[in-house]
Amino acid sequence: MILSPRYFLSILALLLLSNPILHAQDISPVPVPTASQLAWQDAELVAVFHYDLHVFDEEKYVQSKNRITPIPDYNIFNPEQLDTDQWVKSVKEMGAKIAILTATHETGFAIYQSDVNPYSMKALKFQEGKGDIVKDFVESCRKQGIEPGIYIGIRWNSFMGVHDFKVQGNSEFSKNRQAYYNKMCEGMVEELTSRYGELAIIWFDGGAHGPKQGGPDVQGIVERNQPNALFYHNLDRADIRWGGSESGTVPYPSWGTYHTPSWFANRGDSINFRPIKHGDPDGQYYIPAMSDAPLRGYNGRHEWFWEPEDEDHIYPLENLMNMYYNSVGHNSTLILGITPDDRGLVPDADVQRLKEFGEEIHQRFDNPLISAVPDKKGTLQSTSSKALKINEVVLEENIEFGERVRKFVLEGKVNGKWVNLYEGTLIGHKHIAKIPEVEIKAVRLKVLESKGEVKLKSLKAFLN
Amino acid sequence: MILSPRYFLSILALLLLSNPILHAQDISPVPVPTASQLAWQDAELVAVFHYDLHVFDEEKYVQSKNRITPIPDYNIFNPEQLDTDQWVKSVKEMGAKIAILTATHETGFAIYQSDVNPYSMKALKFQEGKGDIVKDFVESCRKQGIEPGIYIGIRWNSFMGVHDFKVQGNSEFSKNRQAYYNKMCEGMVEELTSRYGELAIIWFDGGAHGPKQGGPDVQGIVERNQPNALFYHNLDRADIRWGGSESGTVPYPSWGTYHTPSWFANRGDSINFRPIKHGDPDGQYYIPAMSDAPLRGYNGRHEWFWEPEDEDHIYPLENLMNMYYNSVGHNSTLILGITPDDRGLVPDADVQRLKEFGEEIHQRFDNPLISAVPDKKGTLQSTSSKALKINEVVLEENIEFGERVRKFVLEGKVNGKWVNLYEGTLIGHKHIAKIPEVEIKAVRLKVLESKGEVKLKSLKAFLN
Repeated sequence: MILSPRYFLSILALLLLSNPILHAQDISPVPVPTASQLAWQDAELVAVFHYDLHVFDEEKYVQSKNRITPIPDYNIFNPEQLDTDQWVKSVKEMGAKIAILTATHETGFAIYQSDVNPYSMKALKFQEGKGDIVKDFVESCRKQGIEPGIYIGIRWNSFMGVHDFKVQGNSEFSKNRQAYYNKMCEGMVEELTSRYGELAIIWFDGGAHGPKQGGPDVQGIVERNQPNALFYHNLDRADIRWGGSESGTVPYPSWGTYHTPSWFANRGDSINFRPIKHGDPDGQYYIPAMSDAPLRGYNGRHEWFWEPEDEDHIYPLENLMNMYYNSVGHNSTLILGITPDDRGLVPDADVQRLKEFGEEIHQRFDNPLISAVPDKKGTLQSTSSKALKINEVVLEENIEFGERVRKFVLEGKVNGKWVNLYEGTLIGHKHIAKIPEVEIKAVRLKVLESKGEVKLKSLKAFLN
Repeated sequence: MILSPRYFLSILALLLLSNPILHAQDISPVPVPTASQLAWQDAELVAVFHYDLHVFDEEKYVQSKNRITPIPDYNIFNPEQLDTDQWVKSVKEMGAKIAILTATHETGFAIYQSDVNPYSMKALKFQEGKGDIVKDFVESCRKQGIEPGIYIGIRWNSFMGVHDFKVQGNSEFSKNRQAYYNKMCEGMVEELTSRYGELAIIWFDGGAHGPKQGGPDVQGIVERNQPNALFYHNLDRADIRWGGSESGTVPYPSWGTYHTPSWFANRGDSINFRPIKHGDPDGQYYIPAMSDAPLRGYNGRHEWFWEPEDEDHIYPLENLMNMYYNSVGHNSTLILGITPDDRGLVPDADVQRLKEFGEEIHQRFDNPLISAVPDKKGTLQSTSSKALKINEVVLEENIEFGERVRKFVLEGKVNGKWVNLYEGTLIGHKHIAKIPEVEIKAVRLKVLESKGEVKLKSLKAFLN
């Protein structure tokens, strides 16, 4: 019996519907994102708020020192003007769609009402021990249409004596405390993933060692309580990929695919983080890169936490725009670190810069001079008839179908002839091609190589 | 110029009044107690309540295991019927004048509202994190005319990873955590000695290492905040002395003096604790012995904490009376360990036994058959004229002046002749002499040797 192609496709569709193991990815020529990864990449701009005891210690934060030095008095934590609405508003004005908060960082102090970690806001005089900044933050996000995410630091804990996942010492006592600490971490993950509604991402800073490495078993808890959240990350699973620097940029190309389920397990050459930065165009796992940087990372500092008199180190607008081009414009997500201060507010200077940044992005990219969507054949060509000067072209693939373009050329119609404006490999979620200023009557994208049928989304040209 | 003795004494009196370093002790032939030590010895019966997380864990307490194993879930602490009035009433019925509570024990958990130790009642769901059992306890004591004392355990902390005063590990991190832990201990001592009014005793279990030994500096805090409290104890100061066992007894004689300011620094032969048990009759420091035992120490168990189904191990009345003779009757203080249960109450069986114990003491000693107080010459001799059977004689020195009697004989007038009933060395606060039953018409104490002028208080004879 010979099956007609149509009949065969019907069978295939049935299989796809009935078999939960057989996903689109299994028959796609390239790996494809999950719905959560897609939403993450569509967000483009993400904020991560760092807040911990040492915001209040009036000292410069030195990570290597803070990791091994408990904060002498946790009651310094007293943000009298705490206003998480203001925090979220500040990043909404930048254009962030997702905002993440450090529920715990390296002190081990939990800025919520934990029932498993006594070193939490319950211990404070502030708000009579009833404060819950995670709750405040998540509510502020939802009110303002921002998706909240939670960052959990379990790798370091200066209070409990945990260094790089490991409780100090080598005795029976240490083993018991390690077991206790692991259980406490699992308890915090249970609390944080079950109390605050649906979350965009659960971020384990520095990764989360699992039971195989002597650490807590957190992955299963996240998967059970937050099946739609991005999991970032452990040695077995990483839904996004660190871009290999804290500069807010990734190089070009930075493929969204990787050769192992977690980049964290297989970083390769650790000097220049090449595989992390560039990804693996032939990798079978979809793990798009993110580009993180603290807003206060300019001019010799790199501050994830607020410190007194550090306004001079807020990145100038020009630097932020450069990040934008080299993160969002490089198929990556820009994650900007925001530092609420000891009053409990994002400082005015930071608020102002975030606003300027958001306005500048709108200013540059809201109104393309030329805009094209794919025609029936899937090709992209503008139809403008009058001559226009352009110097930037923004390309987008429909990455629901993965990163299929492998080589392309941008051509412009200059003086009646198609000329080569730009050549590239990856497009992915977004690629901003900077080109020398040129006057064209039309612009088109020619895909020279691809994996499977090309699924383009849009082409927009600007003079910026 | 020759000074008359009278003039010389006036000068001396002036010196005594004006010079805080020159105490009565300096001119006494023997060391004398402070007012607080005197009150402590007059109390005779003291209760110490142990309460901690593992009361709620439904397991048998094994100290060596518990010291190195954090309690998995501190929210098991949930004494729903908590009633410290009932606790205090139970020991008042025994006759205790002082009651002590473990504010912290070896888990490190603080059963009060600490602002320096987050592992405290603030962390609990119980009483919405507002509970303060130290406060409840102290108030219950004051209401019932019992003097409260506080016990602070800093030598072990299974939560923080502290073993025998020492934070685990040997790294820079350990050093920093040791400094943090020491400061936290000082903070707790500051809180406990400043928040709850005047206390009879501050008890550091297992002693308190000081800065010289790498520990916290707690002695100065106690001396500043509770100048009248007994300090028990560190290597430099111990106002009372452990009697060398947890049997509720000391051997005879057990002198109230010692050769160093802290018995803890100089325990001598550690096998049989001889110097601790017997004291040093020539020691220049007044450090009277106490005799501690848990009420549930009978028949193969020795429980300072409540455990399920342990009523069979409550000491029978006979054993408690034996303790009484060998502690109070041996110039020592009996400290009985009481175990409130997981409901928050002293169990009925314990309450009943304490009541019986108190009644038995009253029954035996409230109504002496013969009673004598010193005559003008300071000698003790009864004046009864009719023949009485006796088998116990209770002797008391006025220890305000120290332990002056060094050798004595008790004589009874039997058939018109004084016969030797009993010979001894030490009397001190109280000595109960058990003698073969004898019918006498009078009884008298003859001091054979003394240091300085003898200061006797009373002689009472009983038939028990």
